[in-house]
Order: sequence, then C-alpha cells, then structure tokens
Amino acid sequence: MSDVSPESTAFPTAPARAEHKGLPETGPRLLADVSLPAAVLHEASLAHNLGWMQAFCEAHGALLAPHGKTTMAPALFRRQLEVGAWAITLATAPQCRAAFVNGVTRLLLANQLVGRANMAIVAELLEAGAELWCLVDSVDNARELDAFFAERGLRLPVLIERGVPGGRCGCRSREEVLALAAVVDAAAGLELSGVEGYEGLVKAEAGASPETAVAAYAADLVDTLIALQRAGWLAVARPLVTASGSAWHDIVAEALRDAGLDERVRRVMRPGCYVTHDHGLYGEAQARVLGRRPALGEGLRPALEVFAQVQSLPEPGLAIVAMGRRDVGGDRLPRALRRYREGGTADRTLSVKGWRVETLMDQHAFVRLPEAAHEVRVGDIVAFGVSHPCLTFDKWRRLCRVNEALEVVEVLATCF
Amino acid sequence: MSDVSPESTAFPTAPARAEHKGLPETGPRLLADVSLPAAVLHEASLAHNLGWMQAFCEAHGALLAPHGKTTMAPALFRRQLEVGAWAITLATAPQCRAAFVNGVTRLLLANQLVGRANMAIVAELLEAGAELWCLVDSVDNARELDAFFAERGLRLPVLIERGVPGGRCGCRSREEVLALAAVVDAAAGLELSGVEGYEGLVKAEAGASPETAVAAYAADLVDTLIALQRAGWLAVARPLVTASGSAWHDIVAEALRDAGLDERVRRVMRPGCYVTHDHGLYGEAQARVLGRRPALGEGLRPALEVFAQVQSLPEPGLAIVAMGRRDVGGDRLPRALRRYREGGTADRTLSVKGWRVETLMDQHAFVRLPEAAHEVRVGDIVAFGVSHPCLTFDKWRRLCRVNEALEVVEVLATCF
Repeated sequence: MSDVSPESTAFPTAPARAEHKGLPETGPRLLADVSLPAAVLHEASLAHNLGWMQAFCEAHGALLAPHGKTTMAPALFRRQLEVGAWAITLATAPQCRAAFVNGVTRLLLANQLVGRANMAIVAELLEAGAELWCLVDSVDNARELDAFFAERGLRLPVLIERGVPGGRCGCRSREEVLALAAVVDAAAGLELSGVEGYEGLVKAEAGASPETAVAAYAADLVDTLIALQRAGWLAVARPLVTASGSAWHDIVAEALRDAGLDERVRRVMRPGCYVTHDHGLYGEAQARVLGRRPALGEGLRPALEVFAQVQSLPEPGLAIVAMGRRDVGGDRLPRALRRYREGGTADRTLSVKGWRVETLMDQHAFVRLPEAAHEVRVGDIVAFGVSHPCLTFDKWRRLCRVNEALEVVEVLATCF
Repeated sequence: MSDVSPESTAFPTAPARAEHKGLPETGPRLLADVSLPAAVLHEASLAHNLGWMQAFCEAHGALLAPHGKTTMAPALFRRQLEVGAWAITLATAPQCRAAFVNGVTRLLLANQLVGRANMAIVAELLEAGAELWCLVDSVDNARELDAFFAERGLRLPVLIERGVPGGRCGCRSREEVLALAAVVDAAAGLELSGVEGYEGLVKAEAGASPETAVAAYAADLVDTLIALQRAGWLAVARPLVTASGSAWHDIVAEALRDAGLDERVRRVMRPGCYVTHDHGLYGEAQARVLGRRPALGEGLRPALEVFAQVQSLPEPGLAIVAMGRRDVGGDRLPRALRRYREGGTADRTLSVKGWRVETLMDQHAFVRLPEAAHEVRVGDIVAFGVSHPCLTFDKWRRLCRVNEALEVVEVLATCF
C-alpha cells in the first residue's frame, strides 16, 4: 500500500520542480545573502533549551520523548536524541514515517491510530524495526487495530489514553479504561504497554487551582497504571506512563516522580515547544512555571524568530513588512524585537521601540510606528518574535540556524 | 548569489529525507488507500472554475494573470495557462522562481521587490528569459532597484502601485505617482510599464456603496495610466493596468472595460482564489457578485475539501476528528459537508446534519454532533469545506485531484 522508502513516491503524475520560499542557497550571511522573509533559529538559545529540558527530565527521573510535531525537523530530532532524549513523540502516522526514515527508531505516536492507510504505515514501520507505541481510547478502535495487525502477524504496542470530561480524546472514566484494557488484553494483535494522558486540557474545578488539578490528573494516570498492573493486563515488563506538554512540565514531572512508582515503570515526558520556546504563549507559561518553581533558574530562551523586510512606508506611522500569515503563526501577532540595516552586522541594531504589529494578511504585516520612526527605511530588516512555535514551523520547508554573528551555520529541512 | 536551477541547493548541511503528511503513494482510492487527512481537489469543479474565469475575463476584454500565491501548485498554473491565462501573478521573488523553473515564463510580481537577495533572484529570472513586472511605490525603492539592475546591464519592468489612504502599499496620491514616475523615467535600470492597484482594501466613504468605491478606484487606475501616458513616462508600447482579487472582479472588469482605453493598453485581472473557490469567505463574496450581476449565471463552484477521519468519540455529542490547524486554514472554522464509511464509495454518503466544528487545535478538530448522531463510528471519513483557499493550500505539499468516483487521478505538488 505505502512504503517506508522515500523513493516510493512513484504515483505523482504532476511533479513540481522543488522550489520554495526563503531558502538560503549559497550565502551564509542572514542580513545580506538570504532571501527574506526567513525563519531563524538561534544556536545559542537552541543549545541551551535542548540541554535545559534534558537536564530537567533527568533530575526528575523521567525519560524525555520530545514532541516532534512542533518542528518536524529531523535535524532537531537528531539534536534532541544526541543530548539524551529517549524517543521522539509524533502526532500522526506519516509524521512517524518521516521521523523513521530520518533515523529515529523509537517513536511514540501520541494519538489514536485511525484509518487503514495509516495503520499500513505503522505496520511497515514495525516490520522495518521501529519501536512504536500508539494510543487507544475505544473498544471499536482496539478491535479494528487488533484485526489489522494480527492479520499481518504483528503486535502493536498500545497505551490507553486517559481523558477528562470536556477534554479531547481519552477514556472518561476508570471503568472505561478497565473495560478497554480487557479487550486489549484479549487481542492477539495488541500489546498493552501503559497509560497516556495530556494535561493541557484539564480544567480545575471551582475552588481548585490549575496546579492542583494538573497534579491530580498526573496522579490519576499513575493510579490507572497501577490498576492495570494489578489486574495483570500490562503485557510488558517495562510499562510506560506518559504526559506533559510544555506548559505544565514541572507539575507533571513532580507528580510522576513522587508517586512511588516501581523502578520498572518508564515515566515519559513529551514537551515539544520547549526546543525553541517563544515570545508569546509559551513565554507566559514559563513565567508561571518559574514563578512557582524559582529553583529552576533561568528557564528556556526564545530561539525562533522570523526575519522580514520593510516593503513599503506608504503613510506616516505605517510600515508594511513583507511577512504574513504564510510565514508566521497566527495565535497571536508577532512582536518586533530588533531592526538591522540590510548588509549590516548583528551588533548594529536599530530601535523598534513602540512598533506594533496591527494586522497580518497572507503575505504582509501592517506595523504601526511611533511618531519618531522617521529614520526607518524600505529594506530595513526586522526580527520578529513569534507565539506558538508549532504554527510557525509548519510555514517553512527550511529554516536557517544562525550563530551570534547571524551567519547561517545550517539549513534545516522540515517534513510537514 | 542564488540560482534559478533547482539543483543549486548545495548549501544545506542538514538534509532531511523527503517525507510528509497525507501523500497518497500508490493507491488511487481516496476512501480506502489514502492516508488521511488529505486535501482534495474535485476535478469537475476545478475545470468549471478554470473555464469560468477565463471566459469572464475574455468577455470583458481583459487578460487573466491568476494569482499563483493562492495555490503555488505548478500543475494548476499549467491548467490556468492551458485554458488561456496570459501570465501568472506571484507575491514574492522565490514564488516567481518556483513558477519559472516549472515552466511559467510570464510573471507578474504583484509586490515591491525588496532586499538584495530577492533582487538577485529576479535578475537571474530576467537573464534566463523571464518576462516579469514588479511594483514600485517609493522613490527610495526605485533608486535601489535602478542601481541594482543597471549595474547588471538589466532593465526591470515596473508598474507603479496606486494605494488608498488606510490601505496597504502604494502611492497615496496622484502627486506621489507623478513624482515617482519622473524618477523611474530617469532610471536606466527601470522600465515604467503601467499602473497596478488592489481594490480589496478600498473603503467606501460615508454614504457611498463599496461597489461605487471600487469602481471609482478602478477608474482612477485608468486615469493614472493616462496621466503617465500623456506625460510621456511610459517606456513601453503596450502598458499594463492591473487590479482585481476574487471578490470584486465584476466591478473591476467592467470599470476597466468601460474606460475607453486605447487598445494597446493591456487590462490584466489577477484573481487567485477563484480556481478552487471555497465554502466560506469567497462563497459569500460570490453571492454578492451574483446578486448584483445575475447574468453571470451559476458562478464558481467550491473545488477544495479536506478529508479527515473521526478519531475518537469520547463523550455523547462530541467527535474528535484528526484534522487541525496544520491541515486547514483558520480564517473561519471548516464545515462538515458529507460523511463516508471507510472503504465505501462516493455515492454512499452519510449525514452530517447538525455537525458543527467548534474548535481547531493543531492536529484535532472538536466537532459537536446532534443527539441523533449515535450511528457515527471511529474511522468515519468526513469531507470538510474550507474558507479562504490560500491558507489551506499552504498546509499541504501535495494535494489529491479526484474524479467524481473519488479516485485520485493526480497528485499535485505545491512550492510554498
């Protein structure tokens, strides 16, 4: 049906010659040689973040399986694995395949596996030697997976997803979990391997703090795992309990650490956005983390920016910048951080004080300037901070990794 | 600096093996063999739209230069040219290069050209034989372009952009236009070739209708062109006057037709979204067009859908569908149109009456179901209509073109 080899894309009858935006082709200087807009990763902050989260997980006795859907950049997966990540988490079967063909062999598919074409992708990954887990939250899906994988002589490792009322996927009650576990236990094509949850959608009940609610949710994941263990339904010697995005990692890691779990249980953290952090939502989430856990020190640093040029200065107080919703995530408007003159150097920055992005169109940003911005020129290069890295990464097929002199040291491909 | 050949991407040091989502690899049946979610183009509607807009422009004596930024799909550029389009419009220099290396030789860059790396791309396209126009709206930019292109012995064809107060780019007054034209006229590296505008941001003054305001704006473009012609500042025998997105094409085409322009003036229309139309913003814009111009008949048909599967049914009345902001534009929430059972056929549809997409996360949609939706199954395939094709196309590296039986007849690559 499908094939793990990237050479297998024989079907396309309308190939396009590969050309896309923002690719630095031969020139290494961001401020002179790169077609802008371009997405930029700052090496110093990136390296800091890679090490920070790895150390954080190790300090809490947890394994790190960074969510790869954030970046879908195999070069970053390699960096994450090099500093000690245990696996890469992915959101879809094609994402798992993209990671696997780029050398990632331990994959956590943090979603239900639905659709025969997607099941076929996973079957081929298992046959090719991947270690892979996916989630189940319904008897119907478990039966379908069982039939599919058993027929191929395969056994698919699954984690039961524990959800919350009003949340996304996942069993809504312990009873549902146990009923599903019994079905998985009886399924020749499935191997019950643990429990999964995502705390990002937990809502605190009236009077309770969100921190307490997240901690209680993490504790329930542990209790659920213990219940499955006691019932003899875990098919593996080293089961997994896993949770954690990038906003509540402190609470989850502590709850899993302090639950008195058997050493054989693998506690797996799955933050994704930490790798580049941001100047928006995750910056704020971190302020809350560091507010409650000052011992964590400096925390993560924003590593992702979009560089774009002033295209037009059509009216006093208005700059049109050549960057739009095709270039940057729209959760929140990007923030002007610094400005450079084209051809200049990293240490010669110009002010963006009072600059405010007002609107994003597809290919343009409307930026309001303060009265005093009369020294702005068409062609000036502005570095923008973004909110929510996931929705900026997916706008780019290539990103520039730069050093402090803003020389491009690597061009990273993405596999969205 | 850069190179028009796609083989020139020698710099990347962190290649990723090409793998991405939603690519039908060998199987031609959308409901059985394709990894979902997938973006789907319906051939019948696509062919209808291609012919409709071409006929509309011809009936109004205008040339069609469809905005290629909408799809960035060379296979669709080819279709547009085959039915008679005169050129392809693009938004950036890298987009022009992508179109050119895929066989498009007449390019309208409907933006100011800013940044030496982008100028270098355009210079190489001109040297490689492209016919290309870009916009200017400032003396500073004109001088920079002049210096860059003259130094290379090239002459860059430019159109002066006419803007509106409170709008995006473009000269805000006739005086600015004339001052800029004098500079362009004196520039050895530039060739003044006409006037450009975009009516989508025109605001009607109090008491005036938007239709009247758009018509007045189009008439002003013509007057501006005539003023340039009279001043002897047009450097070409066949100047261009160009405007029109996909929402006001009727008003613009009529205004340009009825302006009594010299036959040698090329009136160029640049709609982009018409090619797939949509189930949202552009559907509504068209209702207004057909309301004021009933003689246009049926109008355009929505041709773009996203197919995705029910992933989880965790609570009564809630389906989680495996489709998110990574798959579909977020201008407005997508709309469930039809449902199929996996492995079924195009003629066996199930109801989505009362289904309402409530929230989009990165990889998930929350869909509220009416009470009676108890026959929904995990794995059911839902066809969603989208709003604003531009922001759905850019989520996909490949799209499936299907026939009425939902067999995949072509896989189209995009070049974002």
